[in-house]
Amino acid sequence: MYRTHTCGELRISHVNTKVTLSGWVQRIRKMGGMTFVDLRDRYGITQLVFNEETNTTLCEEANKLGREYVIQVEGIVNERYNKNAKMPTGDIEIIVDKLLVLNASTTPPFTIENDTDGGDDLRMKYRYLDLRRENVRKNLELRHKMCIEVRHFLDSKGFLEIETPVLVGSTPEGARDFIVPSRMNPGCFYALPQSPQTLKQLLMVAGMDRYFQIVKCFRDEDLRADRQPEFTQIDCEMSFVEQDDVISLFEEMTKYLFKKVRGVDLGEKPFLRLPWLDAMKRFGSDKPDMRFGMEFVELMDTLQGKSDFAVFNDAAYIGGICAEGCAVYTRKQIDELTNFVKSPQIGAKGLVYARVNEDGSVKSSVDKFYSQEVLQELKTKMAAKPGDLILIISGDNAMKARKQLCELRLEMGNRMGLRDKNKFALLWVVDFPMFEWSDEEQRLMAMHHPFTSPKPEDIPLLDSDPANVKANAYDMVCNGCEVGGGSIRIHDAVLQAKIFKILGFTPEQAQAQFGFLMNAFKYGAPPHGGLAYGLDRWVSLFAGLDSIRDCIAFPKNNSGRDVMLDAPAHVDQKQLDELMIDVRHNEE
Amino acid sequence: MYRTHTCGELRISHVNTKVTLSGWVQRIRKMGGMTFVDLRDRYGITQLVFNEETNTTLCEEANKLGREYVIQVEGIVNERYNKNAKMPTGDIEIIVDKLLVLNASTTPPFTIENDTDGGDDLRMKYRYLDLRRENVRKNLELRHKMCIEVRHFLDSKGFLEIETPVLVGSTPEGARDFIVPSRMNPGCFYALPQSPQTLKQLLMVAGMDRYFQIVKCFRDEDLRADRQPEFTQIDCEMSFVEQDDVISLFEEMTKYLFKKVRGVDLGEKPFLRLPWLDAMKRFGSDKPDMRFGMEFVELMDTLQGKSDFAVFNDAAYIGGICAEGCAVYTRKQIDELTNFVKSPQIGAKGLVYARVNEDGSVKSSVDKFYSQEVLQELKTKMAAKPGDLILIISGDNAMKARKQLCELRLEMGNRMGLRDKNKFALLWVVDFPMFEWSDEEQRLMAMHHPFTSPKPEDIPLLDSDPANVKANAYDMVCNGCEVGGGSIRIHDAVLQAKIFKILGFTPEQAQAQFGFLMNAFKYGAPPHGGLAYGLDRWVSLFAGLDSIRDCIAFPKNNSGRDVMLDAPAHVDQKQLDELMIDVRHNEE
Repeated sequence: MYRTHTCGELRISHVNTKVTLSGWVQRIRKMGGMTFVDLRDRYGITQLVFNEETNTTLCEEANKLGREYVIQVEGIVNERYNKNAKMPTGDIEIIVDKLLVLNASTTPPFTIENDTDGGDDLRMKYRYLDLRRENVRKNLELRHKMCIEVRHFLDSKGFLEIETPVLVGSTPEGARDFIVPSRMNPGCFYALPQSPQTLKQLLMVAGMDRYFQIVKCFRDEDLRADRQPEFTQIDCEMSFVEQDDVISLFEEMTKYLFKKVRGVDLGEKPFLRLPWLDAMKRFGSDKPDMRFGMEFVELMDTLQGKSDFAVFNDAAYIGGICAEGCAVYTRKQIDELTNFVKSPQIGAKGLVYARVNEDGSVKSSVDKFYSQEVLQELKTKMAAKPGDLILIISGDNAMKARKQLCELRLEMGNRMGLRDKNKFALLWVVDFPMFEWSDEEQRLMAMHHPFTSPKPEDIPLLDSDPANVKANAYDMVCNGCEVGGGSIRIHDAVLQAKIFKILGFTPEQAQAQFGFLMNAFKYGAPPHGGLAYGLDRWVSLFAGLDSIRDCIAFPKNNSGRDVMLDAPAHVDQKQLDELMIDVRHNEE
Repeated sequence: MYRTHTCGELRISHVNTKVTLSGWVQRIRKMGGMTFVDLRDRYGITQLVFNEETNTTLCEEANKLGREYVIQVEGIVNERYNKNAKMPTGDIEIIVDKLLVLNASTTPPFTIENDTDGGDDLRMKYRYLDLRRENVRKNLELRHKMCIEVRHFLDSKGFLEIETPVLVGSTPEGARDFIVPSRMNPGCFYALPQSPQTLKQLLMVAGMDRYFQIVKCFRDEDLRADRQPEFTQIDCEMSFVEQDDVISLFEEMTKYLFKKVRGVDLGEKPFLRLPWLDAMKRFGSDKPDMRFGMEFVELMDTLQGKSDFAVFNDAAYIGGICAEGCAVYTRKQIDELTNFVKSPQIGAKGLVYARVNEDGSVKSSVDKFYSQEVLQELKTKMAAKPGDLILIISGDNAMKARKQLCELRLEMGNRMGLRDKNKFALLWVVDFPMFEWSDEEQRLMAMHHPFTSPKPEDIPLLDSDPANVKANAYDMVCNGCEVGGGSIRIHDAVLQAKIFKILGFTPEQAQAQFGFLMNAFKYGAPPHGGLAYGLDRWVSLFAGLDSIRDCIAFPKNNSGRDVMLDAPAHVDQKQLDELMIDVRHNEE
């Protein structure tokens, strides 16, 4: 038997017990004729003691051990003289009388400790070593617990977890698909699902009533910051429900998970339900970070046409935020903010600021254009107090300017320490527009996806004014991240066909691509709706991580590569021959 | 609100309650001025009553309903005059006063009832209708429950569910991989995992100690009888364990699942552990069906060289089974058996039989060769009683002949009604050979997979007599199916390299394909082992199904096609261009 106990298990009550432990050598130190070895496994660390005087041979063997050796020891649990209150096993040590090396270890490329990781490239190449670090391992333990609790909750509510296929058909609407050549059907390809959207709708047509699945999804997109080609969704769908039913059930689940997994009580109060247009006006974002205020104040009335300042006079939007106590910002700090908003990622033309002095007077970067009277009006409008800093952005496209101001607000939130990772601000954003105009494609696109139901009262607008149709769609937002989203779906074949038409599909295209769904709707489709949570995002939120990568066991890098496995890679010609495909060697 | 209750919920205690129900019209019948509608949802069926006399308009509307219409009704729960004890809701009915058609239905291509399904092709094309049938739905409910219980058990034993990637690297050892072209790495391909074998071993190297995952796996094989290109495994791995640890833990899990999911108590007794060679000798199979006896008796001593019968004299193997009470089999029945064993799938040269008459004499098909004395010896050896039928197969390859006799035994088991689906015979087959010779590849192949550990005492044989090395591998068998299997793995880089060499890999090939694993073994790999259960097979076993297809929501057909989605299919040229691949239009 390799062990009688784990390395995290022994306590003072075990003193004088004979035990066998197995694990990894974390650390070796010699001190006054004794050798101390910290033995580590998933469950903790236990101190082993080898006494040079009483067992010279064994102690010499222990001195030959190296970091990360795998060993098995037998010994007696002893009460420690110097107890370590920081370790659960800190009251005891093992006086070893047998030592067996189960496997030696080459010196690892980085030391396995919480705060040393040898850099990202090395961590990913040796991910199996990186995962030995307690802080990384804890993320996977959290993920496991999260999934257990999600399943427990949904099972208790009558949801069935149903596996949908991974080898499906390709759909051009949405992101780019990964495709899989079929050997048995030469020239044909499967696609990996971007989400089980249509399949879960078919399960509703099939009468499954309440479905969920914790499921891998795939998108072949260029991997900007914090995206993975494969990611995991908590995917849910319900029949015979309206928007309120879905929202209240998943709000209940969210509170349950916060309590069970994160130990945070979100209280009884329902989450705020913020209409999309309000979110855009007040925060410039459909996923506002509401851990802090600093809401937008629209300043068109206050500042437009009040001087010769062309920038504001020509603007379609002028908006400001009030940074409490930031009037003390230095020239350098203000320059940093100006450079921030003017950076290519944000793209504002400039930043106007106004300090409120202790005496109530206002000093701004546009003093030469505006009278103190207008500036006092600005102060009042912004509800700014002495010591506050007003920051103003304008632009000729209101939505774009709002998004720029949103970035500035978040940056100020960071600088002012208002975005505490241990504070959670949850809300629903509702009443999304059904469509958004795509400059690239020169057509209306579905803001959520083409299966989203318009609000019943807006259906008449589909013909006359589709851009103003609102959808029965909802996103759950936490701390400025969209953590879930969904909608009530269309369950009527005629309405679905109409939406496809507005999206620019010919009836033939719609039939070719989504015929299976529209046909299914002809055989008694129930009203239904649902939601999907991003599991990776949830776990990273609960773990207080900035990136989703560290809550994934084997993530891919920004080029979509697994550097540990060295995948993707070239394959044998034989494989290509069997699949009847060729690789192009020169791009034309 | 669409409903206050489900269609399976109302009881006599609800009488006089006002309720709203939604669901599908299962059946409509008119009787004496009343219209009765059976309303169905996932939870059951409730009878609705429309009274022509008291509410003529509403009753007329009800008469216009068709099968599979989705409707919402409001009404009062009423005690039935003619109660139906077969239905949980059979004590009540709903006197409807409001009816709303939520969605009409075209006449479905087959009637949604347990015993009518319109044939396999239609069922698969309209799978969303097929799934409405109670007996099909029950399989998915069982699958859900099975997964909940598996996770509950493994979580309670300290296993962490860890997701491994779906986009991995291709490995030539094993079955054929599905591959996925990478747009970001032109000319390179991911592969879909045939199992997370190497990844779970890396998780052990990473110190995760106890891992599991209910996970999709993929094999691009020709789809014989009951195989799917994507299937689901319950995949498990443990560190610091020996074969007995794995076996006893998963035996405990199996008993737990039988009790919780199937309601069957398998008792306290440990499962039989049958060495592979014994299984082959006694049943001609490494997955013997032990619901019944009819074990093989080797007859070389009894029949070889006792006459001029060349078939037996030249045989490398002669074996028989004794079919109790089957001496009454007619000539026609015997001919059927002979044709069965001579069919191309089985390939025996012939079948010899011997009837034991009521007087104890033996009448055989080879009477002209053997004396009654030899036949009496045969009877004794076979422990045959008057009324029994002895069936004998021989061949010049002992293993092949045993496999033929195995098929005959199973066929007799079927004919004699000995293979009751409600009876479960579980065992472990152990002590598998490490390698088997491949005539096709002209080399030794790994019987399990190349990561399986040889039995420590057989390691010296690796150089001298590899074909006789036994592995620390084990299969769990139930009712003649392999329902799970696993092994203790190699955790030593040097031993792993040696096994690759025996399997015919050059050191460079081994490094190129499995370098990531062998390198990992250099940094302190713990002893480890595990097991994988086939989820689809388990569910079909518990559901009493012959095929795994009916416990999969959206299975593929024998050409690997999803006929409902019409996948795989041709993709846009643009997609191929982005991936830099071409489809060959003519096979050369």
